[in-house]
Amino acid sequence: MMSPEIETIRQQLPGWLEASLPCVGRGKVASYIPELSKAPHDALGITLMNPQGESVTAGDCGLRFTMQSISKVFTLILALMDNGEDAVFSKVGMEPTGDNFNSMLKLELVRPGIPFNPMINAGAITVSSLIRGESPNEKSDRILQFLKELAGNTDLEYDLGVYRSESDTGNLNRSIAFFLKENGVLSGDIEKVLEVYFLHCSIAVDCADLARMALVLACNGSDPLTGKALIPRRYVQIAKTFMTTCGMYNASGEFAIQVGLPAKSGVSGGILTFVPGRYGIGVVGPALNNKGNSYAGVHLLQSISREMDWSIF
Amino acid sequence: MMSPEIETIRQQLPGWLEASLPCVGRGKVASYIPELSKAPHDALGITLMNPQGESVTAGDCGLRFTMQSISKVFTLILALMDNGEDAVFSKVGMEPTGDNFNSMLKLELVRPGIPFNPMINAGAITVSSLIRGESPNEKSDRILQFLKELAGNTDLEYDLGVYRSESDTGNLNRSIAFFLKENGVLSGDIEKVLEVYFLHCSIAVDCADLARMALVLACNGSDPLTGKALIPRRYVQIAKTFMTTCGMYNASGEFAIQVGLPAKSGVSGGILTFVPGRYGIGVVGPALNNKGNSYAGVHLLQSISREMDWSIF
Amino acid sequence: MMSPEIETIRQQLPGWLEASLPCVGRGKVASYIPELSKAPHDALGITLMNPQGESVTAGDCGLRFTMQSISKVFTLILALMDNGEDAVFSKVGMEPTGDNFNSMLKLELVRPGIPFNPMINAGAITVSSLIRGESPNEKSDRILQFLKELAGNTDLEYDLGVYRSESDTGNLNRSIAFFLKENGVLSGDIEKVLEVYFLHCSIAVDCADLARMALVLACNGSDPLTGKALIPRRYVQIAKTFMTTCGMYNASGEFAIQVGLPAKSGVSGGILTFVPGRYGIGVVGPALNNKGNSYAGVHLLQSISREMDWSIF
Amino acid sequence: MMSPEIETIRQQLPGWLEASLPCVGRGKVASYIPELSKAPHDALGITLMNPQGESVTAGDCGLRFTMQSISKVFTLILALMDNGEDAVFSKVGMEPTGDNFNSMLKLELVRPGIPFNPMINAGAITVSSLIRGESPNEKSDRILQFLKELAGNTDLEYDLGVYRSESDTGNLNRSIAFFLKENGVLSGDIEKVLEVYFLHCSIAVDCADLARMALVLACNGSDPLTGKALIPRRYVQIAKTFMTTCGMYNASGEFAIQVGLPAKSGVSGGILTFVPGRYGIGVVGPALNNKGNSYAGVHLLQSISREMDWSIF
Repeated sequence: MMSPEIETIRQQLPGWLEASLPCVGRGKVASYIPELSKAPHDALGITLMNPQGESVTAGDCGLRFTMQSISKVFTLILALMDNGEDAVFSKVGMEPTGDNFNSMLKLELVRPGIPFNPMINAGAITVSSLIRGESPNEKSDRILQFLKELAGNTDLEYDLGVYRSESDTGNLNRSIAFFLKENGVLSGDIEKVLEVYFLHCSIAVDCADLARMALVLACNGSDPLTGKALIPRRYVQIAKTFMTTCGMYNASGEFAIQVGLPAKSGVSGGILTFVPGRYGIGVVGPALNNKGNSYAGVHLLQSISREMDWSIF
Repeated sequence: MMSPEIETIRQQLPGWLEASLPCVGRGKVASYIPELSKAPHDALGITLMNPQGESVTAGDCGLRFTMQSISKVFTLILALMDNGEDAVFSKVGMEPTGDNFNSMLKLELVRPGIPFNPMINAGAITVSSLIRGESPNEKSDRILQFLKELAGNTDLEYDLGVYRSESDTGNLNRSIAFFLKENGVLSGDIEKVLEVYFLHCSIAVDCADLARMALVLACNGSDPLTGKALIPRRYVQIAKTFMTTCGMYNASGEFAIQVGLPAKSGVSGGILTFVPGRYGIGVVGPALNNKGNSYAGVHLLQSISREMDWSIF
Repeated sequence: MMSPEIETIRQQLPGWLEASLPCVGRGKVASYIPELSKAPHDALGITLMNPQGESVTAGDCGLRFTMQSISKVFTLILALMDNGEDAVFSKVGMEPTGDNFNSMLKLELVRPGIPFNPMINAGAITVSSLIRGESPNEKSDRILQFLKELAGNTDLEYDLGVYRSESDTGNLNRSIAFFLKENGVLSGDIEKVLEVYFLHCSIAVDCADLARMALVLACNGSDPLTGKALIPRRYVQIAKTFMTTCGMYNASGEFAIQVGLPAKSGVSGGILTFVPGRYGIGVVGPALNNKGNSYAGVHLLQSISREMDWSIF
Repeated sequence: MMSPEIETIRQQLPGWLEASLPCVGRGKVASYIPELSKAPHDALGITLMNPQGESVTAGDCGLRFTMQSISKVFTLILALMDNGEDAVFSKVGMEPTGDNFNSMLKLELVRPGIPFNPMINAGAITVSSLIRGESPNEKSDRILQFLKELAGNTDLEYDLGVYRSESDTGNLNRSIAFFLKENGVLSGDIEKVLEVYFLHCSIAVDCADLARMALVLACNGSDPLTGKALIPRRYVQIAKTFMTTCGMYNASGEFAIQVGLPAKSGVSGGILTFVPGRYGIGVVGPALNNKGNSYAGVHLLQSISREMDWSIF
């Protein structure tokens, strides 16, 4: 027998999803990475999972998509586990920027020119460079391994078509990375740093994978299904804070007001979010709003959060 | 008999304050408003109050200082109560800026040129203009009345010396206000708008006043001592979110990571913060860090929050 | 008998004007000052005058329009005559900005926050404040008197309708002026400074007036028709340099490449330019391009300059 | 027998140079390219050459240094000769920026994101990419050949130590180049584009070489000593205009006011300038002011230009 709350969700979810579906028409599938533009424009799916392992799904929850910026949450955590807070925060700040996620303005305008936070591209590239490993391969393997464990899914793999597409067209990320090298934030071979970055952005998942990863965060770093402690609680706390203040690009403030849950979106249309102690949630809806977040996905999360009174604020 | 937690705080607080005191030497009292520069550089004080009305204090908690930007939280709430969410958020956004609190860059660079959020000067001036009232006097009276009620203190008054000093030297705020008029955000007589703004920044309080106001927020809008519902819960939620994402100027992200409590600071060295459901807190320490927040005050809150495990994240 | 070159111009000018007329369709009459929007969209006129006092005209050369930014050249010269180079250039720089003429970005971003040059609004407002005079009236009278002398036209007057319109809607200029006061560049009553500025922008002229003023610059400060020395040569040199590097807003570089003459435009569609030693030129064409310069006027000057090989470069 | 003017210069030059020498103490040798920091801090030299081939020299005119940004004038000319105006100016604009020579702000902020002018790094890298040639080698050979011809010096060569140093540390230029690729301004292999750019910056010259190159510009594209037409006059005109509006980094406006000659400086401390029709001039003084121009070199040119009344304005 299901817990009463999840039973309510199960009954209401199809209606909420239905009400959010029209939003897909107002959004636009990301095209700056050519491979991403192949995603189904009309799709919308969601999976919620509670610590008992019960899950509720609706819509296109089986759609596979790449993690993109969602992976930034977990590379940050892994970098913290590898290096500690002091080392990481000597290279990347803690502040929202108010700018686009790929903006370089503050790298030039604000001394000492380190990335403002780990959720924007400049910060996430920096974080990628901090992952322990002798080679890009070893770093990438460790990231993938970490995500497999969090998702409880040993089948997680790269979408190499997306990876190549990102790498081929990633000139803005190269520009950012060389600026960071100029500023002393990165060192060594930039292509090797970016290989790690592009690869972890290209890990393919579905909503259930995201929901399970999110559930670990919702449970302060322990996987409630296995009982394993996967992440120290302090690093979950840090990740959760960044998700709240910077996780939805430069619409994070609005998301905090309107939804009120820690979340991280990606340009593939995925959103990972959670209700502390109660649910891990994965959403996908490839049609994006002008801030780069899933148009229908945000709408759906807003409906659920309001109805269930889930805001952490 | 006190509740056990507050008893722990009472015992530890003098030690924590002692440990934070050396920070005053690293800070600088604000001087851009000449009157503010008269504040005692070495002062540090704190008051915590719980819903039972029990309070704990330490240091210079009796020092009187002006609310400055702390008042922005309550003018926002009053503007919401006067106008509703839609009207307010058609004039002011919900995003952190990553810029200084008095920066005008985004007003020029980011269409449609409305203030990014109500916690920066541009946003708070806009909010002041939305307070209901036939005249600046009437608006100001309503704000003061609202704050008296929240503080449970009918003696709250303006510090007219500070008001005049702010008004005399407030050229940057005038510049912001005329830019907002150009952008169609403000209309009418700018000096009248600014009179309201400068006045509510000049309301004099002590730590106990702030703690009591904060306690109302901590209790979702009800004054636990009188039982009166003073603020609708949704507006507390909005305020709380802004305090978390933008309340400590462009150090809000760091404060969220290191302290993890909704808070609002002022250049007089005051900080209003709270632990949801449990404590309203007022702090004062006029020596500021380079982001404009009380140097020792932030340090003290960080110690307490870590020791008590109070982060909302 | 006319000099041969001016005879050539007389013969060719109607054809060149004819060829430039279609450009008016691509331009837009300025509307940010409501009164300006009443100007005839299709007009195009030009007057050239040589040191012998011979003049050639074509098109709507009799149209009256306000000087707007063209006046900035002469208030700069007057301020230099009143204060000397050192005093003026302690308050305003010498560099092109690359930004819009009313941008405030560099006032905030580039220490010490003085205007980059006297041709942008911030710089010209600063220059207005430096004109000698006990009162706005006295300053304004001196400016008008100076322009009457340069134009050899004692009938020059303000267009008070335009003045009031500018003053009523000049919120961006007020914003700039208060920012300059904050930065210590301006002092005293901002409305008095702006009164002087708005008034000299509102002086009504026709192409012949501009041509005659320009002729004085072309002759290094002496009026060739009266023999009177009106401006020290060094100040003409300074004005001429600014007209070349910053005179056509942020299309000054292109104008220098394509036309190659010192020039100053105004949003009323006027352009004052000259061929050193040979011609003073006044142009009017109210339909503006997206940089704020007369669309057809620039086209016409480019044709003449190329045909006559007049570029100073 | 010398012409009288050059005889005057010969007599005065040692005194002017002497008077400018103390400026070296206020400047700083460029260190961002490590090899450049080896230049003699105290050096100051100058060579002037007239169309009769007479030359006057003073100080360390025999010092060898790399052209750095001075080469941008000639790659622009060669790109114009290779492609024509329309092709070049579809990729690079004509406006001064008001920003540092290596700033990326306007590439992000101002649509369509092409470099503002060919004298800043972004513009010059773009221009390098437009030089005709099947390979970097062929492009570089054509540039070097062109400069040898202009300098009348078949011995001109790269300083490969400087080249390697620039290439090793040129991360900001790489960042700029990848941003340009993102914006569609550059295409293909960025390292190959930069190889050409770094190489032409590393061509070693002395003051006589610069003076002779400048003399060709002073004579509208013809080498007065050989009678050969080396550059079409229109392209000289374009180069001369850019040198006047943008040649001295973001001190170009001040240089135009204070010296009034078309000029281009490099971070090695070299300045190439000329008096139209009369003199080609090469200057070197490695200690730079805070805008990146030779401190003493600018001072010396200002003295000479004022004394000889050489400003083109």
